[in-house]
Amino acid sequence: MRQLHLNLFVYPAGHHEAAWRFREAKPERVLDIAYYQELAQRAEEAKLDAVFFADGPSLPDNVRYASRFRLEPFTWLSAIAAVTRHIGLIATASTTYLEPYNLARLFASLDHLSGGRAGWNIVTTGAPQAAQNFGLDEHPVHAERYGRAHEFLKVVTALWDSWEDDALVIDQAGGVFADTDKIHTIDHVGERLRVRGPLNTPRSPQGRPVYVQAGSSEDGRAFAARHAEAIFTAHQTLENARDFYADIKSRVKAEGRDPALVKVLPGISPFIGSTEAEARALHQEFNELTQPEYSVEQLRQFLGIDLSGHDLDGPVPREKLPTHEQRGYGSRFGVVVDIIERENPTIRRLLHRLAGARGHWVTAGTPEQIADRIEEWFTGGAADGFNVMPPYLNGGFEVFADHVLPILRSRGLFRSEYGGATLRDHYGLPRPASQYA
Amino acid sequence: MRQLHLNLFVYPAGHHEAAWRFREAKPERVLDIAYYQELAQRAEEAKLDAVFFADGPSLPDNVRYASRFRLEPFTWLSAIAAVTRHIGLIATASTTYLEPYNLARLFASLDHLSGGRAGWNIVTTGAPQAAQNFGLDEHPVHAERYGRAHEFLKVVTALWDSWEDDALVIDQAGGVFADTDKIHTIDHVGERLRVRGPLNTPRSPQGRPVYVQAGSSEDGRAFAARHAEAIFTAHQTLENARDFYADIKSRVKAEGRDPALVKVLPGISPFIGSTEAEARALHQEFNELTQPEYSVEQLRQFLGIDLSGHDLDGPVPREKLPTHEQRGYGSRFGVVVDIIERENPTIRRLLHRLAGARGHWVTAGTPEQIADRIEEWFTGGAADGFNVMPPYLNGGFEVFADHVLPILRSRGLFRSEYGGATLRDHYGLPRPASQYA
Repeated sequence: MRQLHLNLFVYPAGHHEAAWRFREAKPERVLDIAYYQELAQRAEEAKLDAVFFADGPSLPDNVRYASRFRLEPFTWLSAIAAVTRHIGLIATASTTYLEPYNLARLFASLDHLSGGRAGWNIVTTGAPQAAQNFGLDEHPVHAERYGRAHEFLKVVTALWDSWEDDALVIDQAGGVFADTDKIHTIDHVGERLRVRGPLNTPRSPQGRPVYVQAGSSEDGRAFAARHAEAIFTAHQTLENARDFYADIKSRVKAEGRDPALVKVLPGISPFIGSTEAEARALHQEFNELTQPEYSVEQLRQFLGIDLSGHDLDGPVPREKLPTHEQRGYGSRFGVVVDIIERENPTIRRLLHRLAGARGHWVTAGTPEQIADRIEEWFTGGAADGFNVMPPYLNGGFEVFADHVLPILRSRGLFRSEYGGATLRDHYGLPRPASQYA
Repeated sequence: MRQLHLNLFVYPAGHHEAAWRFREAKPERVLDIAYYQELAQRAEEAKLDAVFFADGPSLPDNVRYASRFRLEPFTWLSAIAAVTRHIGLIATASTTYLEPYNLARLFASLDHLSGGRAGWNIVTTGAPQAAQNFGLDEHPVHAERYGRAHEFLKVVTALWDSWEDDALVIDQAGGVFADTDKIHTIDHVGERLRVRGPLNTPRSPQGRPVYVQAGSSEDGRAFAARHAEAIFTAHQTLENARDFYADIKSRVKAEGRDPALVKVLPGISPFIGSTEAEARALHQEFNELTQPEYSVEQLRQFLGIDLSGHDLDGPVPREKLPTHEQRGYGSRFGVVVDIIERENPTIRRLLHRLAGARGHWVTAGTPEQIADRIEEWFTGGAADGFNVMPPYLNGGFEVFADHVLPILRSRGLFRSEYGGATLRDHYGLPRPASQYA
């Protein structure tokens, strides 16, 4: 039976923007590695595929009102690797603001020290303020970033392949540590990058980290179709998720790749209660903790228009919205416009709709209802699994693990034990051979 | 009583170039994180100040004959941090081949997750082949690299200071997560770098990692005098070490800094036996495992001349040596020339002299003799402690910890317990205030 793939998307106090203010929150632990290690251990007990860390090389603007600093994923996940044995470790890293040689080393090392559990969420970085931390006048435009991303991926793939699997000989008597005939320079000379190689470490357990992609723009979809092995995506409705799923799988096929080997994993942020009323009341409690100063600024980033000063209980001024063309990039823009068109919400209602998980699917219900919805998307051609984004941590994950997962297991939809050792094993992906072998 | 500072300098199978071929070696574990975690735990049991990892962003040329690949220090040390509680964690990282914003994040994170145990060995990268992994035609010249290093240090120091210590407020009721008046852009616009900031993470336990420096060239000494809090250095004789020590301390004073707050730590690679004869025999056993193909190539890198083809049992052709001026950079050149001038060795003898620890002080003796020599350098104005470079691991460290350290303790020269929690505590260094406070 086809199995769900489930990741825990880790965010300091939880995904709801007011999570750190919730009565159960422990915001004093947001910098405590033990807090994250415990979360990952709990996710591993629950047999999840992976934990996932977002990232960006700049400080978000609205740290005054929410726990929106950044945890550096390589160091954090290495410390998590040390106290776990099975769970995958997915780090977001930017092709725009890292050098390919440095990124290749970090992932190879994470894969070595975790015994083959590394995944790379490949991003080009959306936040324009990052440019100013790297000596640039302006954030490179979307097409330029994706141009570099394609070339970058070619380079780091070659670096990860540059030691063949059997290059490490370790013949003590003969005095041969490594067979240098099986270690290759990559000699890449491209439009934007020049990298000689080889990498300075032997090939890692998975060969390469699992390639994950998270942008749903046109450029993002084209990139995913060519390269991604797992795709994180944001959808508010089954219908939209189904359209995306079908589109991506057909693009993958058009690239000559097997659609079954590309896992589509939408985000889900569940508020869970023992009754539906209780779940809705919990969601409402979070909404009441939101702060408009934060929410309006986030909306400005999604839509490109500033609604501060408007009556929050008035309608969204639809005439002010930019067009899809004007926004150029940003799959989140489409998600928000879709909510506005479908629901015609007040500004406050729209802010609440986005407060839970920044545009991802927020849903409130009983464990049975949440399991039903997951199954509906999974069997309905909309998802191969989910990025689970608990509104608050760690309680919001505890209740999911204790009450939703048993139902999914009883339906035969999710594993009770790990079947393999690596993240590729969990996702059912093959280990790639070196291109030089 | 003044106390020794001792680090364990970790190298895959040990520092001797033939360590991986030694009968006790476990070269099949050179990529096993548990092997390094056990080493660090053993060093922590022995109450050492820190473990130290070298690094460089390219593959050394001679990996065929020795375990000369690279362990990526940030990931490796993060996984070590997770299984230790006190020992310092010093990572080498390059100011030439990393972006300051990325490096600042990695160290702040390592310091957070280790509870204040991070140290940065600041290097400009000596290996010219690194340039080709980063799109450059040529490795930048020494003066250019140091120019960038000075500016780089200014930038990352400002980034580490950019959140004042009390910027993190976490007022749940009032809805203030961080006091943005205490989070500062750094707005650096310099000759080589432009970085806006702020860093995207709160200030770390130590404020900044401990600043370590390891080059003894003229530029290196000037840099160390201005910035370093600990200095790693290579000397073959007490006299040379004493000259270096006096020179550095007087330069530090000339910069208006307190010489007592700059720890000078030469390398020492001890072969230890229960008799002196046994220690010498052990050293000889290692020398017999060396391979001229490896050793001659290493010598070429140190001296800039290729002696392959020469009779190994003939004299070093001194007339072929370049001048100090011609070598331009590289403190190791001076060390090797000094050996040649002092000892007039055959080529084979010179290769053996450098096989132990790449130019660092190699010494064979009983535990009592090793302790005597350490004390002589420590009390004789040549060292504030040592970077311990066991010729083989982990046995070469075990015998040092079990037999040499107890003697140093009985003489009151080395701690029996940690007195503090952070690497700054171990080294007796103050915690720097933020420049923005």
